[in-house]
Amino acid sequence: MALKIAIVASGSGTNAQAMFDRIKEGRLDAEVVLVVSNRPGARVLDRARAFGAPVAELDHKAFPDRETFDAALAETIAASGAELVVLAGYMRMLTPAFLHAFAGRVINIHPAILPSFPGVHGGPDAQAWGVKITGCTVHFVDDKMDNGAVIVQAAVPANPGEDIDELMNRIHSFEHRIYPQAIQWFAEGRVRVQDRNVSILPDAGRRQIVPDGHWLVWPPLEEGF
Amino acid sequence: MALKIAIVASGSGTNAQAMFDRIKEGRLDAEVVLVVSNRPGARVLDRARAFGAPVAELDHKAFPDRETFDAALAETIAASGAELVVLAGYMRMLTPAFLHAFAGRVINIHPAILPSFPGVHGGPDAQAWGVKITGCTVHFVDDKMDNGAVIVQAAVPANPGEDIDELMNRIHSFEHRIYPQAIQWFAEGRVRVQDRNVSILPDAGRRQIVPDGHWLVWPPLEEGF
Repeated sequence: MALKIAIVASGSGTNAQAMFDRIKEGRLDAEVVLVVSNRPGARVLDRARAFGAPVAELDHKAFPDRETFDAALAETIAASGAELVVLAGYMRMLTPAFLHAFAGRVINIHPAILPSFPGVHGGPDAQAWGVKITGCTVHFVDDKMDNGAVIVQAAVPANPGEDIDELMNRIHSFEHRIYPQAIQWFAEGRVRVQDRNVSILPDAGRRQIVPDGHWLVWPPLEEGF
Repeated sequence: MALKIAIVASGSGTNAQAMFDRIKEGRLDAEVVLVVSNRPGARVLDRARAFGAPVAELDHKAFPDRETFDAALAETIAASGAELVVLAGYMRMLTPAFLHAFAGRVINIHPAILPSFPGVHGGPDAQAWGVKITGCTVHFVDDKMDNGAVIVQAAVPANPGEDIDELMNRIHSFEHRIYPQAIQWFAEGRVRVQDRNVSILPDAGRRQIVPDGHWLVWPPLEEGF
């Protein structure tokens, strides 16, 4: 049975689109029971409607404070029956009450190899620092910024003086592979967590992809991602 | 003509040994004009004598303060004629006066993908945090800890629950490749620095190594490393 996921997003939703694409292709065994945005009219909602997923708009500006907004968000997601909450370009911190309601079931993606370059400018910050290797991270969400246990990371090269868009495209192309892969691991019940150590149970039937160029994903991607 | 290097170390000197080996094999065009340790009897000095390099012992405990010690260290290195100062397991911060004397000519290696996990426990700290990808970094030394411009980085996988020695061996095996490679780039006059951006000038005659497994080095290693 497909894993029920709720996608929470603020923006254009390219990571959500990657999930929709993998689902349509039969590679990601997930059912999108809700796509919710805190920004009315966000492009991710158009993408969700085109895909055929239920959508909700919850304008955070219409709520008196963060706690009240997060309570409404939690209620909306709980009503959808989602088993996993997938943040995809959601630009707000979640309250402890929300995280408590979905303990161990909220994941996020970040455009850097955490713990390097947390925060909202992970990509440009890494370039400005002059790193040679950066990448992206899928991680559990806790009450600190970009801090939860790491599920999977990808490493990509950075080149001096390159256009930031080139670097971000390289990072995003791996986000669009590792995030659906991580959700598929949840769908297959293969994710185990002990403190900060996340393990993916092996599946002898899944062929792993060995990097054949200038990138590294760990744990390895499997065929289809 | 070979690049004259001085190696500064405190411990067993496995990175120094990797340089000696590459030099003996004719792959690293460097002359070790001095190996200096702040710890009398350090194993690196035995390795240096076996290789045939001049050695110096400068016991930091015999000096009244850091400034006086670093002045003696600078004088010893200057007298050796070294063009590049290579820190290899040197466990002390260098004073601004020392760094000024060798501005832009002091490099170091660190067992993590900086800026993640600076400090003396980079490897274990990364494992405790639960990273999936860690590695090592060759960088210029400035007056902040593990902070200078990055020359080359390698990424290697980390596995939950593995013995720390397994992880450190994996990291060290790449240290022993990227550090001699970086020195060779200096020997060939191919290192360019602009602020924090370090570029390696291309050499059409050098074949680059494409990762064929679970690792990434950027800029790419060249044949022989």
